[in-house]
Amino acid sequence: MKVLVINAGSSSLKYQLYDMRDESVLASGRVERIGMDSSIVTHEPADKPEVRDVSEILDHVTAVKKVIDMLTHAEYGAVATMDEIQAVGHRVVHGGEVFNSSTLVTPEVKLEIRRLFDLAPLHNPAHMMGITAVEANMPGVPQAVVFDTAFHQSMPNTSYLYPIPQVLYRRHKVRRYGFHGTSHQYVSQQGAELLGKPLKSLKMVTAHIGNGASCTAILDGKSFDTSMGMTPLEGLMMGTRSGDLDPAIVPFVMNKEELTLNEVNSMLNKHSGMLAISGISSDMREVTEAMEEGDRNAKLAFDMYTYRVRKYIGAYAAAMNGIDVLLFTAGVGENSSALRKAVCDGITFLGIELDEEKNAKRSKEARVISTEASRVKVLVVPTNEELLIARDTYTLVQAQAAGETNV
Amino acid sequence: MKVLVINAGSSSLKYQLYDMRDESVLASGRVERIGMDSSIVTHEPADKPEVRDVSEILDHVTAVKKVIDMLTHAEYGAVATMDEIQAVGHRVVHGGEVFNSSTLVTPEVKLEIRRLFDLAPLHNPAHMMGITAVEANMPGVPQAVVFDTAFHQSMPNTSYLYPIPQVLYRRHKVRRYGFHGTSHQYVSQQGAELLGKPLKSLKMVTAHIGNGASCTAILDGKSFDTSMGMTPLEGLMMGTRSGDLDPAIVPFVMNKEELTLNEVNSMLNKHSGMLAISGISSDMREVTEAMEEGDRNAKLAFDMYTYRVRKYIGAYAAAMNGIDVLLFTAGVGENSSALRKAVCDGITFLGIELDEEKNAKRSKEARVISTEASRVKVLVVPTNEELLIARDTYTLVQAQAAGETNV
Repeated sequence: MKVLVINAGSSSLKYQLYDMRDESVLASGRVERIGMDSSIVTHEPADKPEVRDVSEILDHVTAVKKVIDMLTHAEYGAVATMDEIQAVGHRVVHGGEVFNSSTLVTPEVKLEIRRLFDLAPLHNPAHMMGITAVEANMPGVPQAVVFDTAFHQSMPNTSYLYPIPQVLYRRHKVRRYGFHGTSHQYVSQQGAELLGKPLKSLKMVTAHIGNGASCTAILDGKSFDTSMGMTPLEGLMMGTRSGDLDPAIVPFVMNKEELTLNEVNSMLNKHSGMLAISGISSDMREVTEAMEEGDRNAKLAFDMYTYRVRKYIGAYAAAMNGIDVLLFTAGVGENSSALRKAVCDGITFLGIELDEEKNAKRSKEARVISTEASRVKVLVVPTNEELLIARDTYTLVQAQAAGETNV
Repeated sequence: MKVLVINAGSSSLKYQLYDMRDESVLASGRVERIGMDSSIVTHEPADKPEVRDVSEILDHVTAVKKVIDMLTHAEYGAVATMDEIQAVGHRVVHGGEVFNSSTLVTPEVKLEIRRLFDLAPLHNPAHMMGITAVEANMPGVPQAVVFDTAFHQSMPNTSYLYPIPQVLYRRHKVRRYGFHGTSHQYVSQQGAELLGKPLKSLKMVTAHIGNGASCTAILDGKSFDTSMGMTPLEGLMMGTRSGDLDPAIVPFVMNKEELTLNEVNSMLNKHSGMLAISGISSDMREVTEAMEEGDRNAKLAFDMYTYRVRKYIGAYAAAMNGIDVLLFTAGVGENSSALRKAVCDGITFLGIELDEEKNAKRSKEARVISTEASRVKVLVVPTNEELLIARDTYTLVQAQAAGETNV
């Protein structure tokens, strides 16, 4: 079966086509600047050169049509006809309290995703546009949705409730949801496999550190607590997001700077984090480079960033009364040996001993980077959210075909 | 020397009169409902019965006059004449970045305290009323101010800066200040003394848990990080304060519930925390009682509360790369053996072993409540912020008298 994975944003759409027989990527690409007259499609077929196409793409229906054109193109396509694409899987950021696992798209599922627009106003409406655009272009093809929040639905209420008037939970569903769930779930399974131990037997902290970043405490194979909250703003310091903050700063700054609700949201999500402190970039590579060249603000940003990762690892070790595995993943987590070193060297008291050589070595493979003697195993596991979406979609569609839809 | 300690709020004023020869309290009391026609003065002389007086007290000048009347009263007073009170020490909540220690009141000091009104709009103006009221009633008597924030001025910038646009720090001094500093400093010194070790040699987490609550990481004898932030809202879950929260919840709730800046501040400071979750009380005693009678919301509040204390202890152990001493203080920390047990039993991995018997025993003395074998020593140390204010005041006034004002 060939499965198309789609991650639809409000003005962009990323895609990967998987052949599930060997989980190979047949083609991938992205549509950018949807809604403008010079939209760009970048299409990367496996083993063929990249293709770029500039045209007017005013909506997601046209964007999906363009993707299908690319995938079925005689020269740089990946399939002969559209019929070969037998399922489509969508990334959906917010599944609220309704979805604790991936599911096939039905009218009821679409209604629930719509009901969650309030909680993810920037993401869920865009995902829905992706779903309806596929319906319009590929009628009858089964679709699945894979939620960033689903893995975290196992959290106990002591982790997910906020100590604020509970009418806000009942009325507006204000609670911790957590994000990056697909990634935390995938890498925790991969990590346990790498160690040859059942995931359930390990107290694990997974640090998904990319431009967005979150830590998850995984106990008994399930998400027990996670640093992102009702929105992806809470928790670690990130590329452009503040992470944790005295909540009183929000009204204080709104008052002093006469900011609207949108402006303060934008400030905390897009103009804070590493970018605000370094004054240079939201990109860890650039900040690390500047730091190595002696830039003081870059060093401060790096130090604040890694300090906050350390504090979360300590907090989650306390949450689980112990830690057996510390796992790094995502862009920064997989590639920045400097970050991993700064984090691990500051928490040796937990029984963490980094193998400097293994840490410094670049690799695309899942690997152990702690010493043999290290009580806590430190891992780097490349994440692959698209593959997990493809797998979940494949499994759901196969089960449906086998008549197990009512399971 | 006799020193009067004053803690002035906007509509209340608490006082203690110390004899510094033996640090005994000669009298204490409080004026409540200042500004109303039936203000209440409750005066408690040492070794004499409590006196209550109801009268019209419209401002702080009259309140201080009333306090002096009480203290010099022929029957239930503590001194023969006002002249015996040779110094007055004030608690001041916010010392900003200007004050890293207690200081004598001068015109410059008063100006600086006024400049900090913005950062502590509920507290500093009231303290200033207390200071000017003493000037009016006791001309020429030296006054000192002791700041809740001063002890935390030793924090490194990685602890005190927030990852938000730094123009907010430069323009409005948005940063972490921390509070309860007088208490954290006092109990950490007492704790080290109790253990017979230099404070500088100990990695200590002090948990000041009262109606307000904060944890401090004390490294090298100094505050290294603390859970309260720019305001006392951040950090632990408290009696009526939320503590940590996804900052995006603030604009979200303001929008959904059409709240003003004042209303959302009030919600998070006065209607959240243990009160909001238990639905019963902000008082740990009442919540614990209800929990023991089987109330589920009380148990949830207790569990959330203690869970968050554990996470901070873990985070600060990580911040210091280790922990040698865990110290409980303040109303709840000193008196709730249930809280201490719930906290300690969840973090045994740190090398914490509570002695159940010692923990259960009620006492007013500083004491060790961990087992002999416990690697981390767990202490209960009664706090006494008033005494520390009296001591600092005494020391400063003596130094001034000795001509050391320019030190």
